[in-house]
Amino acid sequence: MVSSSVESNLNETLLYEQTAKRIHRLIKEGVYPPGSRLPSVRRLSEKWNVSISTVMEAYRQLDDRGVVEVRPKSGHFVRLAARKPAPAPARMPGEPKPVQVSDLILDIFHHTRNEGLFQLGAGIPCPDLLPIEKLHRTLGALARRKPVEAMRYNVPPGNFHLRVEIARRMIDAGCTINPDDIVTTFGCMDAVSLCMRAICKPGDIVAVESPTYYEFLQMLELLGCKALEIPTAYPGGLCQEALRFALDHHKIAALVVIPNFSNPTGTLMTDANKQALVDMMADYEIPIIEDDLYTDLHYGDERPRALKSFDRKGLVYYCSSFSKSLAPGYRVGWTAAGSLSPAIERLQAAGYIATAGLPEMAIAEFLSSGGFNAHVRRIRKEYQARTEALADAVRRYFPGEVKINPPLGGFYVWVEAPKRIDAVELLRRALDRGITITPGAVFSNSGRFQHFIRLNAAFFTEDKEHFIQTLGRLAAEMSR
Amino acid sequence: MVSSSVESNLNETLLYEQTAKRIHRLIKEGVYPPGSRLPSVRRLSEKWNVSISTVMEAYRQLDDRGVVEVRPKSGHFVRLAARKPAPAPARMPGEPKPVQVSDLILDIFHHTRNEGLFQLGAGIPCPDLLPIEKLHRTLGALARRKPVEAMRYNVPPGNFHLRVEIARRMIDAGCTINPDDIVTTFGCMDAVSLCMRAICKPGDIVAVESPTYYEFLQMLELLGCKALEIPTAYPGGLCQEALRFALDHHKIAALVVIPNFSNPTGTLMTDANKQALVDMMADYEIPIIEDDLYTDLHYGDERPRALKSFDRKGLVYYCSSFSKSLAPGYRVGWTAAGSLSPAIERLQAAGYIATAGLPEMAIAEFLSSGGFNAHVRRIRKEYQARTEALADAVRRYFPGEVKINPPLGGFYVWVEAPKRIDAVELLRRALDRGITITPGAVFSNSGRFQHFIRLNAAFFTEDKEHFIQTLGRLAAEMSR
Repeated sequence: MVSSSVESNLNETLLYEQTAKRIHRLIKEGVYPPGSRLPSVRRLSEKWNVSISTVMEAYRQLDDRGVVEVRPKSGHFVRLAARKPAPAPARMPGEPKPVQVSDLILDIFHHTRNEGLFQLGAGIPCPDLLPIEKLHRTLGALARRKPVEAMRYNVPPGNFHLRVEIARRMIDAGCTINPDDIVTTFGCMDAVSLCMRAICKPGDIVAVESPTYYEFLQMLELLGCKALEIPTAYPGGLCQEALRFALDHHKIAALVVIPNFSNPTGTLMTDANKQALVDMMADYEIPIIEDDLYTDLHYGDERPRALKSFDRKGLVYYCSSFSKSLAPGYRVGWTAAGSLSPAIERLQAAGYIATAGLPEMAIAEFLSSGGFNAHVRRIRKEYQARTEALADAVRRYFPGEVKINPPLGGFYVWVEAPKRIDAVELLRRALDRGITITPGAVFSNSGRFQHFIRLNAAFFTEDKEHFIQTLGRLAAEMSR
Repeated sequence: MVSSSVESNLNETLLYEQTAKRIHRLIKEGVYPPGSRLPSVRRLSEKWNVSISTVMEAYRQLDDRGVVEVRPKSGHFVRLAARKPAPAPARMPGEPKPVQVSDLILDIFHHTRNEGLFQLGAGIPCPDLLPIEKLHRTLGALARRKPVEAMRYNVPPGNFHLRVEIARRMIDAGCTINPDDIVTTFGCMDAVSLCMRAICKPGDIVAVESPTYYEFLQMLELLGCKALEIPTAYPGGLCQEALRFALDHHKIAALVVIPNFSNPTGTLMTDANKQALVDMMADYEIPIIEDDLYTDLHYGDERPRALKSFDRKGLVYYCSSFSKSLAPGYRVGWTAAGSLSPAIERLQAAGYIATAGLPEMAIAEFLSSGGFNAHVRRIRKEYQARTEALADAVRRYFPGEVKINPPLGGFYVWVEAPKRIDAVELLRRALDRGITITPGAVFSNSGRFQHFIRLNAAFFTEDKEHFIQTLGRLAAEMSR
């Protein structure tokens, strides 16, 4: 049964919408050109025989949509295009679309449990390149030394000692962050999804890179948001021209981006582009959720700067974790989310109450005892060698024209196979041969990248070449 | 700018709504009495000059709202009141209300970090009553014995060994559950919030007990849902008469309930009432989210049955954890959510990716090695002694008429102080004396329980009586 108050609310909503549309129509028809003053609330109310509050709400809605501008004490005006609208970019952004993500994603997760498979699929780091024994020893020692602390609810914002260590390391990313402005999370994706949930409402449009990490798309689907895909380039990542065009044509709630070693492409945004991106988004006052998960795995000499380091308006919400460099199983990540922090702590409290106490203690101790830099130096070199060897093997064993842009960090190889190869079908056949891969289609919400494959090179040591040989043979069979 | 496709969608939505309303009006005005056949889709389409699909969508909406019934091959009928509407109960349920929760809740969480405070506030179990050393030893040994497994992403549905142990223990709750139907989580609240997120959309009405656990209210606020408070009684809990009345008058999306040792009241629903509740909800086809967190801490001889054990339609989503009986800091909980499981796994994958691997292994090993039952037997007795002693002390030291219903399990004492005592103010004063409590107001969204206090008896050993003396004195000062 529908209660009468719901009905009357519905009625009002309809009335607001209709009134807003009538005004909007007059604007679109040129009756009120940009910059002109619109009729007063009282006048419209009398003319259209609706209440004052209906007209005010209609104007408020048009203000929200950027159609109308309120000038205090002067009235309502048709908004001038404040910025010169961006010209059509060489590569156009997509249209915002409700997200519908493939069930394949859960399968990809489940494959990680299957020890019989060679893992070229999900983003698992190689255990041999993690300081597992040392971390477990540290964790065990802390449990003995501080048993009660290690068993306590580690309530948000999380372990202080760890937040201090994180703040120290953030200096290398060009960021001065107070430990009190950091909130620990269960890994980087948890941080990203908390930021999304704190910012976005159902129906909101969120800009993402194309290709983008499939879990971002899944999160947007679960939130009922629309994804707007922005083309990317290699090298450099996100096409800012296309983004600007999208910003001029849509009301965008946030941008989610991996500026350093994008997943899946492994590309890197230059500092100049980072600066320009942050400035542009600040100009539009739209927040950026920055995922900096792969940053420690840079192949170049320098750890790249974070977008956050260019942030002057507090609009960049930074997310990262230790899952790729130290301890996937410990589930320790964090966000430096400034003004969002209270909202994030609330979401945590009403979600999982507390984060990983003992693992956070162990990672804090590991970081403060030194050796992290030496460790990542070693694994960076190794991951670079493995991605290069894997890319070589793919070029050798795959049929036809295969395009691979050499990744600049991380451990993914993003392969553009010949068009005839459907990567989802290739995955199906590969599974029969004990190999898992990630088909390109899951990195897009618009049917792109069907013939792309993301390969995880983390496990690709010399003796594993035959797996790529097998994959190449399967691909060859499909392209006949 | 609003794109034209959004506008035309809006237009259509308006049209559906208007058409649905016109039909509904005719029904309400008695033109079409209950049980009568409504005009055919074609007829209405012609008469009102709208498209066939508009009328069909309008009928579909009215069907959703339970106003209209579709009889295949016969047409649309005004739904008969299938059930006799419930008479007004002795204690009326509240009205559904958007939730606005006090900032106090985050303060209560932060107080748990303050070692200078005597913890009568948040729901922390006493470390002395947890098998901390044994669990830490088990965890350390597993990390040494299975280092790589302990460091792996423990992706949903979580550790299999643990799910087997949980399924075994669920038999004592009267439930036969397959380990494959269990999904592990980061504690019980995580399980509850995953279920809520899988079921509820913004604007949905969710029925809760009054008083209810404050984090349920916070979660509903964050989801944009409305809470409908159902009165409770002691003993017995939820007033089913009031619930039925609410079900007849509102479209309720779910009920969240703690049937065994409710937080904060510590009361227990009888098996007959559980059966009746599950049957009633099944009759209305509305899901129940069952929080069974305190069940192991029963003071009586028998572990009480779960609502889930009466579930025939798969509408009870069961949630629990080991946080109160074994290991708060390990963050290990679970849900047996049947048909919701895939949605929950998706939410987890697009949230925190994986749950607590090593802690889940440790708890699985602890459970399978025996000794859990002996452990909870011991702590149950101790918690019973502590709650009784605390209740006695409150009766002795508090001014005026204090009402306390003896809790039947768990470790909370729910105190009804004299009306003049504002518990939020009492908390403020208590903090100055190094004591934290939970004011009753946070357990309601409708301003109830202002003079109630939830006290956590977990830390209340003999030597702590002076804290209650202090609290009593502060209360006396306020009631003058």
